[in-house]
Amino acid sequence: MTTRIGVIGAGVMGAGHALMLSSQIAGCQVTAIADADEARARSVAQKLGDARTFSNAHALIHNDEVDAIVVASPDPTHHPLVLECLRLGKPVLCEKPLAVTSRECLEIVEAEMSAGKRLVQVGFMRRFDPGYEAMKSAIDDRRHGLPLFLHCIHRNAVAASYTTSEAIILNTAVHELDAARYLLGEEFVNATARSSRATSAAPGRRPQFLLLETASGVLVDIEAFVDAQYGYDVRAELVCETGAMSLAQTHAIQTYGAGTIGKSLYGDWMGRFDDAYRRELQAWVTAIRMGGHVGASAWDGYASTLTAELCLDAFKSQRMVRIDMDSRPAFYD
Amino acid sequence: MTTRIGVIGAGVMGAGHALMLSSQIAGCQVTAIADADEARARSVAQKLGDARTFSNAHALIHNDEVDAIVVASPDPTHHPLVLECLRLGKPVLCEKPLAVTSRECLEIVEAEMSAGKRLVQVGFMRRFDPGYEAMKSAIDDRRHGLPLFLHCIHRNAVAASYTTSEAIILNTAVHELDAARYLLGEEFVNATARSSRATSAAPGRRPQFLLLETASGVLVDIEAFVDAQYGYDVRAELVCETGAMSLAQTHAIQTYGAGTIGKSLYGDWMGRFDDAYRRELQAWVTAIRMGGHVGASAWDGYASTLTAELCLDAFKSQRMVRIDMDSRPAFYD
Amino acid sequence: MTTRIGVIGAGVMGAGHALMLSSQIAGCQVTAIADADEARARSVAQKLGDARTFSNAHALIHNDEVDAIVVASPDPTHHPLVLECLRLGKPVLCEKPLAVTSRECLEIVEAEMSAGKRLVQVGFMRRFDPGYEAMKSAIDDRRHGLPLFLHCIHRNAVAASYTTSEAIILNTAVHELDAARYLLGEEFVNATARSSRATSAAPGRRPQFLLLETASGVLVDIEAFVDAQYGYDVRAELVCETGAMSLAQTHAIQTYGAGTIGKSLYGDWMGRFDDAYRRELQAWVTAIRMGGHVGASAWDGYASTLTAELCLDAFKSQRMVRIDMDSRPAFYD
Amino acid sequence: MTTRIGVIGAGVMGAGHALMLSSQIAGCQVTAIADADEARARSVAQKLGDARTFSNAHALIHNDEVDAIVVASPDPTHHPLVLECLRLGKPVLCEKPLAVTSRECLEIVEAEMSAGKRLVQVGFMRRFDPGYEAMKSAIDDRRHGLPLFLHCIHRNAVAASYTTSEAIILNTAVHELDAARYLLGEEFVNATARSSRATSAAPGRRPQFLLLETASGVLVDIEAFVDAQYGYDVRAELVCETGAMSLAQTHAIQTYGAGTIGKSLYGDWMGRFDDAYRRELQAWVTAIRMGGHVGASAWDGYASTLTAELCLDAFKSQRMVRIDMDSRPAFYD
Repeated sequence: MTTRIGVIGAGVMGAGHALMLSSQIAGCQVTAIADADEARARSVAQKLGDARTFSNAHALIHNDEVDAIVVASPDPTHHPLVLECLRLGKPVLCEKPLAVTSRECLEIVEAEMSAGKRLVQVGFMRRFDPGYEAMKSAIDDRRHGLPLFLHCIHRNAVAASYTTSEAIILNTAVHELDAARYLLGEEFVNATARSSRATSAAPGRRPQFLLLETASGVLVDIEAFVDAQYGYDVRAELVCETGAMSLAQTHAIQTYGAGTIGKSLYGDWMGRFDDAYRRELQAWVTAIRMGGHVGASAWDGYASTLTAELCLDAFKSQRMVRIDMDSRPAFYD
Repeated sequence: MTTRIGVIGAGVMGAGHALMLSSQIAGCQVTAIADADEARARSVAQKLGDARTFSNAHALIHNDEVDAIVVASPDPTHHPLVLECLRLGKPVLCEKPLAVTSRECLEIVEAEMSAGKRLVQVGFMRRFDPGYEAMKSAIDDRRHGLPLFLHCIHRNAVAASYTTSEAIILNTAVHELDAARYLLGEEFVNATARSSRATSAAPGRRPQFLLLETASGVLVDIEAFVDAQYGYDVRAELVCETGAMSLAQTHAIQTYGAGTIGKSLYGDWMGRFDDAYRRELQAWVTAIRMGGHVGASAWDGYASTLTAELCLDAFKSQRMVRIDMDSRPAFYD
Repeated sequence: MTTRIGVIGAGVMGAGHALMLSSQIAGCQVTAIADADEARARSVAQKLGDARTFSNAHALIHNDEVDAIVVASPDPTHHPLVLECLRLGKPVLCEKPLAVTSRECLEIVEAEMSAGKRLVQVGFMRRFDPGYEAMKSAIDDRRHGLPLFLHCIHRNAVAASYTTSEAIILNTAVHELDAARYLLGEEFVNATARSSRATSAAPGRRPQFLLLETASGVLVDIEAFVDAQYGYDVRAELVCETGAMSLAQTHAIQTYGAGTIGKSLYGDWMGRFDDAYRRELQAWVTAIRMGGHVGASAWDGYASTLTAELCLDAFKSQRMVRIDMDSRPAFYD
Repeated sequence: MTTRIGVIGAGVMGAGHALMLSSQIAGCQVTAIADADEARARSVAQKLGDARTFSNAHALIHNDEVDAIVVASPDPTHHPLVLECLRLGKPVLCEKPLAVTSRECLEIVEAEMSAGKRLVQVGFMRRFDPGYEAMKSAIDDRRHGLPLFLHCIHRNAVAASYTTSEAIILNTAVHELDAARYLLGEEFVNATARSSRATSAAPGRRPQFLLLETASGVLVDIEAFVDAQYGYDVRAELVCETGAMSLAQTHAIQTYGAGTIGKSLYGDWMGRFDDAYRRELQAWVTAIRMGGHVGASAWDGYASTLTAELCLDAFKSQRMVRIDMDSRPAFYD
């Protein structure tokens, strides 16, 4: 009844997931940690109690005391590791992106369909954030009529120096692309990409602005700005025919000090989406026991990556790009 | 048709009123300024254009080119100056307090009744603040049923070093006493006064907390704290049977910076109640032309001062004090 | 010293301006009202006291007791009336738009330059809203570095049934176009226009989304949606290199009732921008006396209209449109 | 390594705790449910999977497959059940109140001290709310200097018809009494109790207002109003020498609809404090494994109940009541 989980990757995300699984998630146990740097895996294992460590991720996947796998290793490794989990029929929660190209994502989709069973969840955690869930529910029950606009903002305080304009679209804005697809329940048909002037803090990349249209005529715009400096700030506003909803600031405390009434911002996504990560992991563990599937599917991983790639084309060509996507296989309904 | 106004007192409040009257109020002209320090009066007069100056306030009141008077001189002068205005039958807007004791306030009430005409307005500007007005309107139309509680907070960033605990009750909390009387439309029947520990910034005085009950059974509590340092912060929440209302933060801008989402606080009442002062002055000038009366009356000046005096008794005795007040003369209905 | 003002147009805007000028603005007097329907002019004049009425706007402009003119008559009349004011050398505050085409706006610009004196103010009242002013000040002092994005939302609760998609760009979004030009202090170089699905309440027109770039590389996006139903809602967020600022909700009261903590929205611009209109009128009257110029100039009226026209081209062609504008004549510096 | 938990009481609180423990808490398993109405216990057990049920709570406590107990049965049963857990040396999380009188609470304290081991946690869940935790941390690090005031509001939408004014103090306001003791780290020295007029919805009881002073001179005021109708609304503001902090509204979504910008209120404490309950349960389970103690102790249960009893004396006598409490035994440091 207790699901035994192996975590691949002992970096920030992997260690965070391993600790959260063992300290806050019902019905599971972290039995294994793998990292190419096995010392790093051991350091996490110690905090957990008695997990076993591996330097070889494939060995972890094959281990008999591992029922299900979390993949939180470097992006290029996601594709082979998820395929290996599929081969063994073990459920896998893969951090986003599912793979670094839509081509590789599609291979995973095909492998999962061949396996005949939904085993892959992609770590788009926002689908488990109470704010997005409330928006989803309002869209589904047509409380304010049909959706018209979705305005999104994604700001990071700081980014790695090697981050490029391309990466801002593929790795940052892709969160909003998936969130929009989740909320609206449909795919995009075209995309435009523009950028503002570069900032003095990061002259080598441009803050991005994407504008997309869905099949039913909803406009989605996304500001993706990774050098905002003042804090991590993710916002979304859904505008419908008779009302609108926006993610609220959920900080527990308001402070009156030094001439200001204010709330402290989160420093990064780990703080802002801490509860979403917890709910994502809990839902995944519970779904494994129940035999169902929750969250973003391999198809979602594919569709979001493909959309981001086409946004990148739009950015490079500075023209509107059409998005033609095969319809979703019935397997993913 | 243009009311010619004389302003007595060229300090912060007097200068502020004179400038506002001449630059933002319809239907009036500031023709005279008096200050014991006539140079100070001249300095304000220069900004206005061509007002005449006086070192003697009585001379200003008697001047033929002065139709109405604003009294913004030191508190102890209010009583004789307002009486002089009444003697000449000239409308007067007197900064709070109307007089420094309830005894003196009562003399003004009696003088006004003898004059047979409502000529005195007391500068309780909150009665013209859109927030308090909205609360008043909600009480009057019973939108949320009957009132039960009124929670008030009055914090100044800094206070003069000579400010005493007594002054915090008589000069600071008196604003809330008048606002509560205005909102609830009734008088208090008892009062309790407590204080918290003194602060290290001002060991000689105590932040005050007053708790009063009205005739109909509404509880009003007032925190009056003049050394809050972080800013000027006035709040009020009205709690009724089926809903509550609170003064909102009306700042025009929200800022995202340095790890915080925030709004700048006002430094003092001049900023926070700038619009209330403007509306108060405009309403006074308009009422003079129309022949009516608006705002706090001499009776309100008396009743609020008397209530504050009894709160001070409660503070000194650390016992609940009963408040017995004559009923308001029909003259003030 | 008292400026005598004639108001042309006794509809909602004209009546509003006339009443505000006479009841809340220092230094002026409304001496004349004109309306093609003179009975309507008389009805407003009665509320003011003793203004004289005209059915012929030109007669009002020529009247000797009129020093300055407010034009609030139907849009197509703005052009000839403003030109007539210029001919007589009388200051004129013209409600937006200055004229219905950029061509006509340019004729006014040329006429004003020929007159050799800045006499025209265009009623873009947001320039006098404390929120926009605070943003402008933050841009000017580079508090948060250079601007990158300006996100704008303009929602009306309801619109006239004959309102078209074109009108949403030309008459609604033009407010944001002017506000952006004012804030950023520069012109746009290109524009893209998209629209969402139509709403069931107004199937004949489309909610608009404009995306423009300024000369220095700031992206400005504008949602213009005139059938939002839930209320009048104008928002703006300025994003700079190290911080952001947004217009705050300035409602005086927060209400707790019926399961909700909320603030009441304004029904339309008259409520939301009441204070901006007052400040605009006061600044205009004061500037006339002082001999200066404030607010949006005839050039601003021209540039905003031209930009809106090019946004309309972008909407019709569904392509990005370049915006080439002559540089502003030194006369308007 | 998995703690086996028995839950006593299958009502709203007991069922809620049982489901949360089994679906969201790491390191535990609910193996038993007891309720006098065993059918009710069975209904909960079915949702959990395979917990065994009891109609006799003592049998559950004695069961070998129960390592630790949650007591969520009717208040008068808390005392004997907790004592029984102590007798067997099993950790117990008892819903508030620990017992219905301070006398009984003290017996539990004494029994626990005799047992020589900290086994009792009282379910004052607010100690695990992120907002209160942030306030506690700010007090402890003196970020804003010493505390001066703590303003508390506790409003329930509705209350059982048999709820009395006494119960409002003993059962409702006691949450704030414990929270204040937790935050300030000290006991109260006196209390005053007043009440507003009764509401038409509940003429038989009075909304309460408590005013207490701590040993170091902090004033704590508590509005406790159980018929607020508009929603469940718990607030707290801590005022220190140089700044203040208040619990913020943590709703995930802001809605723009029907003329209002608003957030939905929670209907009751289960929604508002859902996360606090989860964190409380997780902390309890983790502490059992680690051998430590967290949250409110038996002593806290005693001290809060005693303080509430003295507030009730103050209400009945309408006089200030002194609070003399033995100092806390070193066992509870």
